[in-house]
Amino acid sequence: MRQVVMYAPGDVRVEEREDPKIIEPTDAVIRVTATCICGSDLWPYRGIEAVNDQVMGHEYVGVVEEIGSEVKNLKVGDFVVGSFVISDNTCEICRSGYQSKCVHGTFVSTIGTQSQKARIPLADGTLVSTPGQPDPELIPSLLAASDVLGTGWFGAVAAEAGPGKTVAVVGDGAVGLMAVLAAKQLGAERIIAMSRHPERQELARFYGATDIVEERGDEGVAKIKELTNGLGAHSVIEAVGTQESMMQAIRSTRPGGHLGFVGVTHGVELLGLELFFAEIHLHGGPAPVRRFLPDLIQLIWDRKIDPGKVFDLALPLDQAAEGYKAMDERRAIKVLLTV
Amino acid sequence: MRQVVMYAPGDVRVEEREDPKIIEPTDAVIRVTATCICGSDLWPYRGIEAVNDQVMGHEYVGVVEEIGSEVKNLKVGDFVVGSFVISDNTCEICRSGYQSKCVHGTFVSTIGTQSQKARIPLADGTLVSTPGQPDPELIPSLLAASDVLGTGWFGAVAAEAGPGKTVAVVGDGAVGLMAVLAAKQLGAERIIAMSRHPERQELARFYGATDIVEERGDEGVAKIKELTNGLGAHSVIEAVGTQESMMQAIRSTRPGGHLGFVGVTHGVELLGLELFFAEIHLHGGPAPVRRFLPDLIQLIWDRKIDPGKVFDLALPLDQAAEGYKAMDERRAIKVLLTV
Repeated sequence: MRQVVMYAPGDVRVEEREDPKIIEPTDAVIRVTATCICGSDLWPYRGIEAVNDQVMGHEYVGVVEEIGSEVKNLKVGDFVVGSFVISDNTCEICRSGYQSKCVHGTFVSTIGTQSQKARIPLADGTLVSTPGQPDPELIPSLLAASDVLGTGWFGAVAAEAGPGKTVAVVGDGAVGLMAVLAAKQLGAERIIAMSRHPERQELARFYGATDIVEERGDEGVAKIKELTNGLGAHSVIEAVGTQESMMQAIRSTRPGGHLGFVGVTHGVELLGLELFFAEIHLHGGPAPVRRFLPDLIQLIWDRKIDPGKVFDLALPLDQAAEGYKAMDERRAIKVLLTV
Repeated sequence: MRQVVMYAPGDVRVEEREDPKIIEPTDAVIRVTATCICGSDLWPYRGIEAVNDQVMGHEYVGVVEEIGSEVKNLKVGDFVVGSFVISDNTCEICRSGYQSKCVHGTFVSTIGTQSQKARIPLADGTLVSTPGQPDPELIPSLLAASDVLGTGWFGAVAAEAGPGKTVAVVGDGAVGLMAVLAAKQLGAERIIAMSRHPERQELARFYGATDIVEERGDEGVAKIKELTNGLGAHSVIEAVGTQESMMQAIRSTRPGGHLGFVGVTHGVELLGLELFFAEIHLHGGPAPVRRFLPDLIQLIWDRKIDPGKVFDLALPLDQAAEGYKAMDERRAIKVLLTV
């Protein structure tokens, strides 16, 4: 099968690799229908994270091709969406809604789903079947559910976005835009997207943003305060992961408010004293997408949300290198790879 | 009147100062019945925080001696308990339960209640009258409500202690012990006190601790994991404020669990990446004691809780210096000063 491998920063190739096989009786092998490139894939691409001949990709939708003897909830031919973390969905941590920290959890990125096929361990706990074979037009949205939608949704839930709330979203990448969508679905009254890119602002408005703030850092914070009676937003979603964006998010949250941080943090250090006197709620981490998948799939199936619009470039898997380049140069928000 | 002044680390004196007067129409002047020394007063005493001819004290109960023309909820002669933060209790932040971050808030420590009298601004929003004149035996408990009880309670609420939960408390000072009491009142199933002092362990058990862990740091974390199926506690309350205690608390919390941090942080730095992958809820800061005061006063009034036992030394105000010394040398958990 064909599979994407990153050899070094900036060096992405598509190679012939051996087809995956069932190893454990709880495995499934899927034929990938569509996969994509994640904002977090850019960290190694840009040399900020170490990389060494590494398979890539952790977002995927596809068709079950083979199942192990103990798989009960799936059958061959099912169209499935999976989370970017393998989970048994039965341990105490999974049952509490934190499948991303499953006691038997592993990251799908170690498998690499930018490929024609993938072996998914703990298939019953990780994959969710769609109600039937999806219309092709639903594929991008279902793929988004695999990570960016689930992650933005978790950010909005962690930030306790809801009726009567003013929500600010730091970051206008795919996850930030999905957080806007989620805040809207959760009933937020006002949604402030922090973005300086016209086309992303437009998409943010499409997904439900009521206000746009172009300023960043302390100026961005001042603008959020100006829009909220000097108090800050009730709910803030951080979807970048840098020191600047994290401080912008913390300082934009009112005392007693909630910050959901879902941008994978890089080099971020927080002063205890600032957190203490900010007196906000903080919650974040790798999103337990599996918790939300059944509901998100249904919302997509019923055409109530259209997260797939976040993909603004689609390429065949074999042109993955161009996809990475387009995202790195911010020519594309998010690249879908057809398989 | 007599008032405690800290001139320099270790240099505490009781001096004659001018009696306070009503300045604003929203002020009250109270005759202090009892006050006390806080664990946080030890930071400047030990030279860890700057200090310079500073009035001391922010915990107090007393009798209203005079009120300004706009004070409506109090009358002269009322016995009152106040929070350690002045609050109007009417702004949007107060109404959301965060009176410690009132938009008109100031810290009572700038007034100094280790004194015979005190002028309390925004008296209606800050002070709560008891149902009548209290029996003398209730005074220590009512005084505890002013800070340590309210702070421990906030820690337990922030940590979402409650039925079915395993709660771990890091810190066996007065606030940690009050967090044990609060966790018990909130219905926690199991309460693990982290303490290596036999007399504090005993008090922790009196307040509801079911288990004691003597180990600290990573060994303490390992012990908590051992007691919780390898997962960590559902709820952890941090009541110290050092780097070690904060890390101990973070690592003792299970994924998806809640950490309430109420120890005033000193020199604490948190790595974003560790917080991200810990995937816990964090909430803390100066406790909004005013939110809890009416309920806490009632619990004390009805003899349902006995937080006053946390005072293990009582001295006249004029012997405040000895009180500081006893707490600094850990000869006393918490010192009550009679006025």
